Amino acid sequence: MSRFLNNRFKTFNAYTPGEQPTDTAYIKLNTNESPYPPPPGVIEAVSKSELSKLNLYPNPDASGLIDKIAGVYDVRAENVVVGNGSDELLAFAFYAFFESGVVFPDITYGFYPVYAELYDVPYSEIPLRDDLTVDVRDYLGIGKNIVLANPNAPTGTALLPEEIEKIVKNNPDYLVLIDEAYIDFGGVSAIPLTKKYDNLLVIHTYSKARSMAGARLAYAIGNESIVSDLKMMKYSFNPYNVNRLTQAAGIAALGEAEYYLKNNREIAKTREHTSQCLQKLGFEMTDSKANFLFVKHPGIGGQELYMKLKNKGILIRHWDKERIKDYVRISIGTKEQMDKLLEAVTEIVRGTEA
Amino acid sequence: MSRFLNNRFKTFNAYTPGEQPTDTAYIKLNTNESPYPPPPGVIEAVSKSELSKLNLYPNPDASGLIDKIAGVYDVRAENVVVGNGSDELLAFAFYAFFESGVVFPDITYGFYPVYAELYDVPYSEIPLRDDLTVDVRDYLGIGKNIVLANPNAPTGTALLPEEIEKIVKNNPDYLVLIDEAYIDFGGVSAIPLTKKYDNLLVIHTYSKARSMAGARLAYAIGNESIVSDLKMMKYSFNPYNVNRLTQAAGIAALGEAEYYLKNNREIAKTREHTSQCLQKLGFEMTDSKANFLFVKHPGIGGQELYMKLKNKGILIRHWDKERIKDYVRISIGTKEQMDKLLEAVTEIVRGTEA
Repeated sequence: MSRFLNNRFKTFNAYTPGEQPTDTAYIKLNTNESPYPPPPGVIEAVSKSELSKLNLYPNPDASGLIDKIAGVYDVRAENVVVGNGSDELLAFAFYAFFESGVVFPDITYGFYPVYAELYDVPYSEIPLRDDLTVDVRDYLGIGKNIVLANPNAPTGTALLPEEIEKIVKNNPDYLVLIDEAYIDFGGVSAIPLTKKYDNLLVIHTYSKARSMAGARLAYAIGNESIVSDLKMMKYSFNPYNVNRLTQAAGIAALGEAEYYLKNNREIAKTREHTSQCLQKLGFEMTDSKANFLFVKHPGIGGQELYMKLKNKGILIRHWDKERIKDYVRISIGTKEQMDKLLEAVTEIVRGTEA
Repeated sequence: MSRFLNNRFKTFNAYTPGEQPTDTAYIKLNTNESPYPPPPGVIEAVSKSELSKLNLYPNPDASGLIDKIAGVYDVRAENVVVGNGSDELLAFAFYAFFESGVVFPDITYGFYPVYAELYDVPYSEIPLRDDLTVDVRDYLGIGKNIVLANPNAPTGTALLPEEIEKIVKNNPDYLVLIDEAYIDFGGVSAIPLTKKYDNLLVIHTYSKARSMAGARLAYAIGNESIVSDLKMMKYSFNPYNVNRLTQAAGIAALGEAEYYLKNNREIAKTREHTSQCLQKLGFEMTDSKANFLFVKHPGIGGQELYMKLKNKGILIRHWDKERIKDYVRISIGTKEQMDKLLEAVTEIVRGTEA
């Protein structure tokens, strides 16, 4: 810490992202990336059209990209804003809207409390039920802004659009932000509800289902007035926040719906298969609709399983947090990667039982 | 504005970037981009190595890139942080360090007051001299944090490292941030001074001299403790702020010093030629060491010249701001582009005089 750091940050704790080892020897099941590369159309879009123009700034309005996204969801360009990953859009939203306070589950994306602290936003955490699901009733008429990841992370459980609607409808004077990073693996999006409610904002990322974590791209969809506030934040922070190559890749990706649909179905199938095999090994788990499983085993602690798998060359994620310390989160990779995981887990569990 | 926007932003004015027309018919001399494309090595680095891995997150530490940058300036990796363009790094610095207040010139990069307002930082603007140069004496022992663009924008005038050192030395308890976006076109960098003074932070961008405005990349160099604070801000805002393609391009660019040196010399030569021709037409101007000229003509107002050139298909920049409303800023393009500019300006000036 330098002697120039503002007082308010002196006790501040930054977010810790999952490990990103630079050697590629690990089977990486720890940051919920898609195991599938981007489709040829995306690679082509970056190679041919944009690289020779890197000396020129990107379009700060990202209007070509925004028009395409609007078309996919049958909304207007005024309802869409893009960011350098959903983290940036979440940060803008926390700073723009939540000074009166915000609530989110006690077990959810670890960045929400970091943003609240970064921007001096008062927040409270609503405990998930004992089975780690969200109880919609906890959020009805709560009198605070609300952030929900749906499906939730790291639990993977999903609310239905009618449940989201109930929350939105019962908090008409507060903003409800739904972070749908994992929606395409088995959930149903609340985006259509943004046409009916002016207090709903939905954030999507290209990092998971669209195989573009390395490109950093996300969008938020909501009422024109909320989106215009977010655009003001973007223009006051970094007008050129989404670079030229990422804009081109993002446009091309929207023409590849079939490729992604096939991958997402495959991931869901692999998730179900992995889930069944882990259950046979004695694992308990939440009902995940995301591209990961959140599991625990009565015979082995979360930290121990994480370490033993790491020693076998497989990275998963563990949090040293009271309610979930027995759990680990395992991203769904290819069928082949999951077979290796299952093999390793089987060895570990049998070794523990012996 | 939505009904959810925090009170503090209700009267807030976002930054207005220069026009970025989506049609390419204009000769674009309005946002200080390099007229030269990125070198083949940069294009190659993006095409081959990284596109097929876009499904994976970038290295959040950007350690490969940071090690290379550290090598170029003979500092350690702990002295370097990278951002999604220098705007992001400036935002982090304003938020992290300046709660006690900051000063900068009245005529400088228009984003500084925006950041101050965005983060509730008290600021005052120190008037440039009548000739639009920075008076170093104004900053000695001023008792506030200091931000200076060097060369300054949009005036282009540069301070020498010994003048920067005087300011840094005479404000030992305040942070001095030097924004060297335009340093490679004729200035001398203050980076070596960061080894001697723990209250100096220098920001460089790839957007100008390195022909990578479209890739969004910048770095800050300073004492390890200041840089570690900035890294904390980055990890608390967007750990993956620099994407995979940009990291690869940024590494490759550092191996292309000769290409850039040749371009920068060419740009300086074109600037001097353009400057002489404009002076012959009766223009007055500051002594620019940047890749732009800041000029005025006794016979034509800034807004009028801007409009007349736009009508002739040439974009330059004008600000409707009291002290500089007679001026326009003209980015230095290729020799051919500047010949067209000079032809158009000659017609306009003669038309005005007639």
